[in-house]
Amino acid sequence: MRRVAIIGAGMTKFGEHWESSIRELIAEAGMNALIDAGMDGKDIDGIFGGTMASGRLTGQEHIAALIADYMGLNPIPSTRVEAACASGGLALRLGFIAVASGIHDHVVVGGVEKMTDVSSDETTVALGGAGDQEWELALGATFPALYALMARRHMTDFGTTEEQLAAVAVKNHANAAKNKYAQFQKEITIDEVLQSRPVASPLKVLDCSPISDGAAAVVLVPLEEAKKYTDTPVEIIASAHATDTIALNNRKSLTELRATKIAAKKAYEMAKLTPKDIDVCEVHDCFTIAEIMAIEDLGFFKKGEGGPASLEGRTRIGGDIAINTSGGLKGCGHPVGATGIKQAAEIFWQLTGRAADRQVNDAEIGMTHNVGGSGATAIVHILKRA
Amino acid sequence: MRRVAIIGAGMTKFGEHWESSIRELIAEAGMNALIDAGMDGKDIDGIFGGTMASGRLTGQEHIAALIADYMGLNPIPSTRVEAACASGGLALRLGFIAVASGIHDHVVVGGVEKMTDVSSDETTVALGGAGDQEWELALGATFPALYALMARRHMTDFGTTEEQLAAVAVKNHANAAKNKYAQFQKEITIDEVLQSRPVASPLKVLDCSPISDGAAAVVLVPLEEAKKYTDTPVEIIASAHATDTIALNNRKSLTELRATKIAAKKAYEMAKLTPKDIDVCEVHDCFTIAEIMAIEDLGFFKKGEGGPASLEGRTRIGGDIAINTSGGLKGCGHPVGATGIKQAAEIFWQLTGRAADRQVNDAEIGMTHNVGGSGATAIVHILKRA
Repeated sequence: MRRVAIIGAGMTKFGEHWESSIRELIAEAGMNALIDAGMDGKDIDGIFGGTMASGRLTGQEHIAALIADYMGLNPIPSTRVEAACASGGLALRLGFIAVASGIHDHVVVGGVEKMTDVSSDETTVALGGAGDQEWELALGATFPALYALMARRHMTDFGTTEEQLAAVAVKNHANAAKNKYAQFQKEITIDEVLQSRPVASPLKVLDCSPISDGAAAVVLVPLEEAKKYTDTPVEIIASAHATDTIALNNRKSLTELRATKIAAKKAYEMAKLTPKDIDVCEVHDCFTIAEIMAIEDLGFFKKGEGGPASLEGRTRIGGDIAINTSGGLKGCGHPVGATGIKQAAEIFWQLTGRAADRQVNDAEIGMTHNVGGSGATAIVHILKRA
Repeated sequence: MRRVAIIGAGMTKFGEHWESSIRELIAEAGMNALIDAGMDGKDIDGIFGGTMASGRLTGQEHIAALIADYMGLNPIPSTRVEAACASGGLALRLGFIAVASGIHDHVVVGGVEKMTDVSSDETTVALGGAGDQEWELALGATFPALYALMARRHMTDFGTTEEQLAAVAVKNHANAAKNKYAQFQKEITIDEVLQSRPVASPLKVLDCSPISDGAAAVVLVPLEEAKKYTDTPVEIIASAHATDTIALNNRKSLTELRATKIAAKKAYEMAKLTPKDIDVCEVHDCFTIAEIMAIEDLGFFKKGEGGPASLEGRTRIGGDIAINTSGGLKGCGHPVGATGIKQAAEIFWQLTGRAADRQVNDAEIGMTHNVGGSGATAIVHILKRA
C-alpha cells in the first residue's frame, strides 16, 4: 500500500446559500481545492463524494456522476458514499484506500449538503433517517431527543452540568469567529447558551449545530508525488471506520460511543501513536454533549472528565489539546455530508500553518472524528505534517 | 493487488414485499449468501451495500450501518454507495477493490431497494433523481421519457422497430419464467407487448422494467482462499467504472451510452478478452431499448444491429450470446440498488452450473453491465470460472 498525502483543500462558506444549488456548491469547493493543490482537473482520475440526503433535500440522487459532469471531469469514475453525518469522513476513507491501493493516483474527495431548500421540519425528518427510522424516528425520536438522552445520562452518571455543555458552544463560537468559512462568526457567552430556547432538555438551541448549506474538498495523491505540487503536504497516517447499533436503545452504554472508541483504537494502532501525540482535533460536536463524549472516547480525557475539562478551557486553542479550531459543527455549521471533509481541510490548514488567527502553535499531528447518526458509524483519521 | 473470487450468492424473490421492511430484505439476502458460501458471519470483516433512494422511499438513510447491525456484524466497517440504478454494481466494485487491496479479507456485498412503501408517483419522482433534477426531472422528463427519446432516435437512425424492442421483453420474460426469484414468471408474446398501454411512445408498459422490492448479496474472498469454502469459486477478472453527462441533452449521441463503451473497453483490457469471449451477460435493460443499446455498446453486435439480433433470437439462451438469463430488469424485476448484485449472483450461478432450466451450456466467462440513470454511470464486471 502506498502512503497518501493531502496536497490541497477548499470549501465554500458554510451557511444559507439561497443563490446556489448543490452542484454549484460542490463545484466551488472542488475547484478551490484543485487551485489550492496547484493541480489541473485533467490530472484527476477519481472522485469520491459524500452526501447524506441529497435525494430527500434536493431531489437529486446520483450526485457523484453529477459532480464529475459539472466539474468537466467525465468519464472518470466518481463514487458517492453515504453514512449519514459521517458521509464526508467515509468519502475521505475511500479516497485514501483508492490512492493507497493504486486504484487511483490523483483523487478529489468532496462532501456537500444543501439543506435549506426544504422546510426545517422536513430537514429534521430527513436527518432522522440517520437513526433507526422504524424504532426511533417513527416514534418521534428526532436527533436532539436522542442526544438529550445521552446528555441526561452523562449528567446523572458523572455530574456533568449544563454550564459545562454550554462551555463547548462558547469555545466553538469563539473559534468560528476567527474562521471566514464559518456560519456563525459571532462569540456567545455561557449565559446566552443557558438562556436560549429549550429544544430537548437539557439541550437548548445553542447546544445544537445548525442546518447549513456548504461543501468542502481535498486533493489526495501518493506521498511520493506530493512534493511536486506543494512544499507542505500532509500525510494521512491512519484511517479507521467502525459501526455500532443503529438505535440508541440497543446500546450497553449511553455515555460513550463504542464505534468512536473502536475506530480511535484502530487509528492509534495504525499510526503507532497515543492520544497525547495529537496536537489538534476536529471532533463531531453535532450537540455539545457529543463533543464532551468525543474527547473522552478519543482518549484525551478520562470518562466523566470531558465536562470539567471543557469548562476549564483545556480544549481551547492554547489549552491541553485544541478541539474544533474550525468552530466545529456548532460554530462553523453542519452541512451534513461536507462536515467530514471540512474537518480534514481544517486539520490540513492547521498542520501547514495556514489557520490564520486560530492557528495552533507548532501543530504537527492532527485528528478528525466524524460520526454518523447517534454513533452507528464513526470514522477517525490521523494526519501528520509530511 | 490480490485476485478476488465470489464464493457464494443469495437473494430474496424480487416483487412486492408488503410484509418485509428494507432491513429484513437485505438481511435475508445477506444470510442466504453467507449460507451459500458456507461462511459464518463472524468471519466477515467488511460490508459494502448499494441502495439508491432508501431515504426517499423508506425514510431510512445510513443503511450500511443498519445492515451491519441487523445482521449482527457490528462493529465491522460497513459502507453504503449510491450511483442511482448502478448502486449495486458500484458496491460490487468497491468490495472487489477492498479485497484486492487487502483492506478487507472477507466481504459481503449487498444491494437492496424497497420501492412499494410509497405511491408509484412518488417512486417515479424519486427515480427521476437519477437524472438531472434541475434540467430534466423538474421539467417533467421522467425516465420513460428519456429512454423514449433514445428509442425514437435509434429507430430513426437504424430502422429499429417496435417489434424488435418487444422481442427483448418477450425473451426476458421467457427467461424469468424459469427463475424462481423473478418478479414475473410468465411468458408474454410480441403482440401483447405491442398492444400494451403506451407509457412514452414508442415505449409501452411491457417495454419497461417494473417497480420492485428485493435484495441480493454475494460473498467475496481472496482467490487463494476460495477453495477452502467452495469447489466452484468464480473470479472477478475485471472491474470498470465510467461516467458521462448527467443530462441526456448534453450528449453527442442518443443512440449509445458512452460510459458503457468506456467501461467495457477498460474491462476487456483488464481481462485481456474480447466480446467474443463472453458466454453469458446480464445487461441493464431498464427499458427494452436499453438492452438493444447495451448489446451494441458492449461489442456483441454492431451499432444498429441490436434490434434485428434480438428479434432473430440471437440473444436467447442457446443463441450467439445469452443475454439476461435471469430475466433482466424487465422480467426479474428492478429493485434499483439490488439489480447490480443480482446480475453478479446470476452470473455466479451460470458459471457454477447452478442456473437450473436457464443454464447456458459450458458457460465459463460472464459479464455484468449496470447503468445509473440514463447512462451517467456505467459499471462493467467480467467473471470467470476459477
